[in-house]
Amino acid sequence: MAGNKAVIYRGAGRVEVETTEYPTFELKDGPGVNPHNVGRQLPHAAILKVVATNICGSDQHMVRGRTTAPEGLPLGHEITGEVVETGRDVEFTKTGDLVSVPFNIACGRCRNCKEGKTGICLNVNPDRPGSAYGYVDMGGWAGGQAEYALVPYADWNLLRFPDRDMAMAKIRDLAMLSDIFPTGFHGAVTAGVGPGSTVYIAGAGPVGLAAATSAFLLGAAVVIVADLQKDRLEQARSFGCETIDVSAADPADQIEQILGEPTVDCAVDAVGFEARGHGSDAEVERPATVLNTVMGVTRAGGAVGIPGLYVTGDPGASDEAARQGSLSLDFGLGWAKSLSFTTGQCPVMRYNRQLMMAILHDRTNIARNVNATVIPLDRAAEGYAEFDHGAARKYILDPHGMIG
Amino acid sequence: MAGNKAVIYRGAGRVEVETTEYPTFELKDGPGVNPHNVGRQLPHAAILKVVATNICGSDQHMVRGRTTAPEGLPLGHEITGEVVETGRDVEFTKTGDLVSVPFNIACGRCRNCKEGKTGICLNVNPDRPGSAYGYVDMGGWAGGQAEYALVPYADWNLLRFPDRDMAMAKIRDLAMLSDIFPTGFHGAVTAGVGPGSTVYIAGAGPVGLAAATSAFLLGAAVVIVADLQKDRLEQARSFGCETIDVSAADPADQIEQILGEPTVDCAVDAVGFEARGHGSDAEVERPATVLNTVMGVTRAGGAVGIPGLYVTGDPGASDEAARQGSLSLDFGLGWAKSLSFTTGQCPVMRYNRQLMMAILHDRTNIARNVNATVIPLDRAAEGYAEFDHGAARKYILDPHGMIG
Amino acid sequence: MAGNKAVIYRGAGRVEVETTEYPTFELKDGPGVNPHNVGRQLPHAAILKVVATNICGSDQHMVRGRTTAPEGLPLGHEITGEVVETGRDVEFTKTGDLVSVPFNIACGRCRNCKEGKTGICLNVNPDRPGSAYGYVDMGGWAGGQAEYALVPYADWNLLRFPDRDMAMAKIRDLAMLSDIFPTGFHGAVTAGVGPGSTVYIAGAGPVGLAAATSAFLLGAAVVIVADLQKDRLEQARSFGCETIDVSAADPADQIEQILGEPTVDCAVDAVGFEARGHGSDAEVERPATVLNTVMGVTRAGGAVGIPGLYVTGDPGASDEAARQGSLSLDFGLGWAKSLSFTTGQCPVMRYNRQLMMAILHDRTNIARNVNATVIPLDRAAEGYAEFDHGAARKYILDPHGMIG
Amino acid sequence: MAGNKAVIYRGAGRVEVETTEYPTFELKDGPGVNPHNVGRQLPHAAILKVVATNICGSDQHMVRGRTTAPEGLPLGHEITGEVVETGRDVEFTKTGDLVSVPFNIACGRCRNCKEGKTGICLNVNPDRPGSAYGYVDMGGWAGGQAEYALVPYADWNLLRFPDRDMAMAKIRDLAMLSDIFPTGFHGAVTAGVGPGSTVYIAGAGPVGLAAATSAFLLGAAVVIVADLQKDRLEQARSFGCETIDVSAADPADQIEQILGEPTVDCAVDAVGFEARGHGSDAEVERPATVLNTVMGVTRAGGAVGIPGLYVTGDPGASDEAARQGSLSLDFGLGWAKSLSFTTGQCPVMRYNRQLMMAILHDRTNIARNVNATVIPLDRAAEGYAEFDHGAARKYILDPHGMIG
Repeated sequence: MAGNKAVIYRGAGRVEVETTEYPTFELKDGPGVNPHNVGRQLPHAAILKVVATNICGSDQHMVRGRTTAPEGLPLGHEITGEVVETGRDVEFTKTGDLVSVPFNIACGRCRNCKEGKTGICLNVNPDRPGSAYGYVDMGGWAGGQAEYALVPYADWNLLRFPDRDMAMAKIRDLAMLSDIFPTGFHGAVTAGVGPGSTVYIAGAGPVGLAAATSAFLLGAAVVIVADLQKDRLEQARSFGCETIDVSAADPADQIEQILGEPTVDCAVDAVGFEARGHGSDAEVERPATVLNTVMGVTRAGGAVGIPGLYVTGDPGASDEAARQGSLSLDFGLGWAKSLSFTTGQCPVMRYNRQLMMAILHDRTNIARNVNATVIPLDRAAEGYAEFDHGAARKYILDPHGMIG
Repeated sequence: MAGNKAVIYRGAGRVEVETTEYPTFELKDGPGVNPHNVGRQLPHAAILKVVATNICGSDQHMVRGRTTAPEGLPLGHEITGEVVETGRDVEFTKTGDLVSVPFNIACGRCRNCKEGKTGICLNVNPDRPGSAYGYVDMGGWAGGQAEYALVPYADWNLLRFPDRDMAMAKIRDLAMLSDIFPTGFHGAVTAGVGPGSTVYIAGAGPVGLAAATSAFLLGAAVVIVADLQKDRLEQARSFGCETIDVSAADPADQIEQILGEPTVDCAVDAVGFEARGHGSDAEVERPATVLNTVMGVTRAGGAVGIPGLYVTGDPGASDEAARQGSLSLDFGLGWAKSLSFTTGQCPVMRYNRQLMMAILHDRTNIARNVNATVIPLDRAAEGYAEFDHGAARKYILDPHGMIG
Repeated sequence: MAGNKAVIYRGAGRVEVETTEYPTFELKDGPGVNPHNVGRQLPHAAILKVVATNICGSDQHMVRGRTTAPEGLPLGHEITGEVVETGRDVEFTKTGDLVSVPFNIACGRCRNCKEGKTGICLNVNPDRPGSAYGYVDMGGWAGGQAEYALVPYADWNLLRFPDRDMAMAKIRDLAMLSDIFPTGFHGAVTAGVGPGSTVYIAGAGPVGLAAATSAFLLGAAVVIVADLQKDRLEQARSFGCETIDVSAADPADQIEQILGEPTVDCAVDAVGFEARGHGSDAEVERPATVLNTVMGVTRAGGAVGIPGLYVTGDPGASDEAARQGSLSLDFGLGWAKSLSFTTGQCPVMRYNRQLMMAILHDRTNIARNVNATVIPLDRAAEGYAEFDHGAARKYILDPHGMIG
Repeated sequence: MAGNKAVIYRGAGRVEVETTEYPTFELKDGPGVNPHNVGRQLPHAAILKVVATNICGSDQHMVRGRTTAPEGLPLGHEITGEVVETGRDVEFTKTGDLVSVPFNIACGRCRNCKEGKTGICLNVNPDRPGSAYGYVDMGGWAGGQAEYALVPYADWNLLRFPDRDMAMAKIRDLAMLSDIFPTGFHGAVTAGVGPGSTVYIAGAGPVGLAAATSAFLLGAAVVIVADLQKDRLEQARSFGCETIDVSAADPADQIEQILGEPTVDCAVDAVGFEARGHGSDAEVERPATVLNTVMGVTRAGGAVGIPGLYVTGDPGASDEAARQGSLSLDFGLGWAKSLSFTTGQCPVMRYNRQLMMAILHDRTNIARNVNATVIPLDRAAEGYAEFDHGAARKYILDPHGMIG
């Protein structure tokens, strides 16, 4: 059996493509693997030949050294592939199936999975509810930025594309189903976006652009995307969004210029804890800035979806409270406006089939909107670096040259 | 005080434009006015100069003589206009406001209105919950196919357009907010349509086309519209719908050809009790046909929205049961498939503001999709006749030549 | 390996307790087994020692000869037991676990299961979505009125009781979690029952009484149960329900006497297709009577939950339409009142954990309310006969004398 | 015209009963009246003879001097009364009606009211969405702790009790419909409480006890109430709650002792910004303590209802951030657990009719559970003082001696 080239975290600022072991139906020890998971048998798993695997903003948190991710961790949780082998307990997934893998690993058998809360499965991560591939403190499931990837509980987790040729023709779009499209969509849905809504989206990175794409798919009237980086804002404008440069002026004032009133119906925080300040504060990290801004610009009775990641501990934060995951929030303002807030990992399975249908039937252009850019697996390090410098792109790694 | 030219029902097959009294803030006796409503004081009303007022398929039921509508009834419940006078108790509606009038008359003070169920207001129709302008057995509120119309409980009922010029530029679209756009939207929403859905819509009349437009606005992947009339189907295809000619072959077979499976996620009955048979039965009225077909083509676990009108009595029906409003339904099939069904008048107020926003911000083209056609009030009789013959048009009457 | 005593259908009006084969991890051929299911491997199954297994009203449909159930069919779908053996792919279910089995068999891997619609699983019944143990046309999964029963997809399907002693102390109540308690609860929930609701429940059999119990648990203000049989109504009164004898007078009049108005907020049809007429019609089967009555007595804007079984074909029906599963419904009335309707098998898994918690913490007394009556497995035939004669009891078979 | 004895705020720690003007159908100037509201005509109002009017914890915020409430402000927003006069535009409310007044003043005509968000009405408070009687910064509507009270938009705002005698027999319970019962219920509903839930309620004051009562009405399995004061905890135990003394030990540990696990399904913050610390910190104000605790003890995927008041500015706070309404929250923890949060004033109208029905039909005992205690209006100052000292009572003022 051949090896498996994979993207490996090698310390702050460094990723390398290395040859690792080909997956087997057992969870083996390695960097970042939880001891309770070592030796776990996986007869319910499928092995995929990876067709597309994307670099995610949340990978950057690790690569920037903002987490306790150990050196040697195989990265990547946005996986699309072809089933090449199935464990003995896999019943409905077949070799040759082209599939999307939700980034949240879920058992399909616990209370939370039965309730559709696959982002907080109870049986896959000994540390806490919820897991993901190739991620720190998530139990130690190997990352999928690799030639081959193993997906446990395959019958539950995999979404099969109904037609191979049709799927390959739209593979750049379908590759976004593993994470950012559902994640952005979850942000929009939990913000209450529907036909006619006015929407504020903080962050024009891939998740923000996916939230904007989702808002349009949900019928939003006006979608306003805010960021500091001009080319990301340009990308947002390219598909019909209004934009706000938060370094230029107060977001509420800019919203008023667009809508005639300083508030929106719905807001999405697609930034998370690595937020920077607004206006003259734009160079400084201000982890509560985005949340406080969205409380300010959301109309009374509105809702805030928060797909942006907030963490329980942030060793690299600029102040002690933030290092403990504590933020100084204008909660009184939110309360006075009767706002509601939804946090957490997107339960991808709740949305991915429907979004696949929207893609296959040409109702949305997620790949174009996030500026999906295909590069070979071997150039992963470049992709990480460019993305980290704010490139208005979503990088898809193409381990087998199948996308082209 | 000047008179008020209005469209009057003059017996089966006949409508005439006649000069009636200008509205006053009292509900006066007349053909079809419920005795309990006579003399009702309306200080909460506004008088509108009618800018646009549409002919509706449900008006046709009366004009065809399928109801007990009395001669002399002023018709019309799809009203858009400019406020020219307000009662002494009107506080927030102002002269000069350009507004849409929900076809359901609602008091804004009863249990049902407080619950948002404005289609079944308890205080406006002495006969039963729910009312409408210019309609048989609805309490006797004068129709709005006229130069001027009175709207009770104006602060509650009226939807103000935020900008007059912007509104006049899209008045053909906004004119659809009084009934068919929300009605079609309600059908789609209660059928569970969302991003990625496959949808079957029975009926390519204006409500069916509005439901199709709504399904796209809600993100549907595939919208299939079924009808017997070729030019209505052509109209549906003009904005991206798939179509089924129910006179040609079994709908399930045609769905399978489109989707690769014989069922859809969601179904909308936009036909109602005057349905005709399918296939060789297409010339005969079969009031239960559409409902039985949608039960057949909706997937297990799906939902059926039923904006199409069903009546408690139909004197013109072809069999005794239908004359009593009783239909022979394949209920066992629906049960085996765990279907759910939502019936009734659309509560327009639940949707009209959001749909207005979608129109004003160019997210939908309802007027184009239903082939909105403006004619002078004086030509109302022609409009009724052409619509009755199946013209693939939605007629807007333009009493003051303001649309042009 | 010992045999397995089980209740077998032996033709209209006859059930017998016979010794059958002990379960194995393969679905073997036999009466009523779908050929496509024969030989199906079940490494995901668990074998239970049955602690309690109830006789259900829907079993009676078969035993009365109203279906095409073949002689030799092992009956029973309400199963509570102890895990005594697990297949090689079972990961979280352990020998010794005391568990409740939802009557709907579900794979936990298809689109419908992922959406929580376990009543219409796509992978267990080759004929149509949805299955159940020991039931005609459901694929051929052996019934559970037996000493031992096999449960496929055990990790997905089983609900484990958290504490064995606590559970055995309430086993009569917990035995209702496999079907009637969730089924009645589903009826109440889909009828919109909540705090303060007035509720009409058609049918005082076990499902009707379970719906009434559920309505109270949901906070209903008034629960009115209607039936023809006086001792069943007496049973309903024993826990605080108001009652209506539909043979005595018009239900709407009786409701008005109780509530001061002739309508309720919510209605549940817990009867289904074997309904009898009301008033002087009470001796005759009138399959549409209950549905038409609930449309009459539900207030405008209300909802109707329909857990009562309706079938696609009823060879024993009194008229041709009903034999085809077609019912003559006052649909126009329902439409005029903007009613909504929810049909189908209850997805037990959606509710059983929560109801278990309510039982274990003494918030509900389902066993007392349905008059749970424990009898040995050997006396199953008597139980069937008494229940068929309208005994106001819910029979629990106790194959191993564990309940006492 | 006679005068109107009313409870007046006279500076920190002082309330007095004084004779004020009898209400008129115009909003007159006075302490705390917003200039934009002065002279507002109120033909839509009703004048009530107050039957019961309660002292609320949120009144205490003002009386403790924690707000900018001006001296001379007439207090009270929990009003139950008899209609003695109606404005000329009142149509459905009649003299002699016995009614409950939602504490939120709402116009019944704005977008938010139409959406059922009566807690944030746009037309009653010139400063911000939402208003209440007798409250600082709420526009200047006179308080209802008085002999007579004026209710604007009476047809919209008032809930009529269906039977006067039946109502007077339960007037202590019905008096809780104006605020704390719906407020506690809103907390429970937005925390996701349903049948079988385990619930943590922070605060055993009247709102906390009302939330606990609501949780039982909604079918909760276990309701755990936490507080620092022993007699309030005793009150909670008196109707079946489990209790936690937060001064004694870590709440999570205490929950584990009760439930066998350290988390609950649902949590309600019924404390708000005047929270004190837990354990050894119990003497110190810690405005973020309750929110941080509920994030800790709510299970992943759970929800938090926050009826407890948080403010945009708190001049009396112990630190600068809290003075600005900013709290240091463990938001990363909440995010990791995928929690959702609902804040804001309860929209009383959404719930009060249903809760009235539950009271009238003996399904709940809110007065007993909150230890409702009737005192004459003249003894209001004593009531305020005792309540401020933590009396486990809910004080009802009885201005006309009608309760007894």
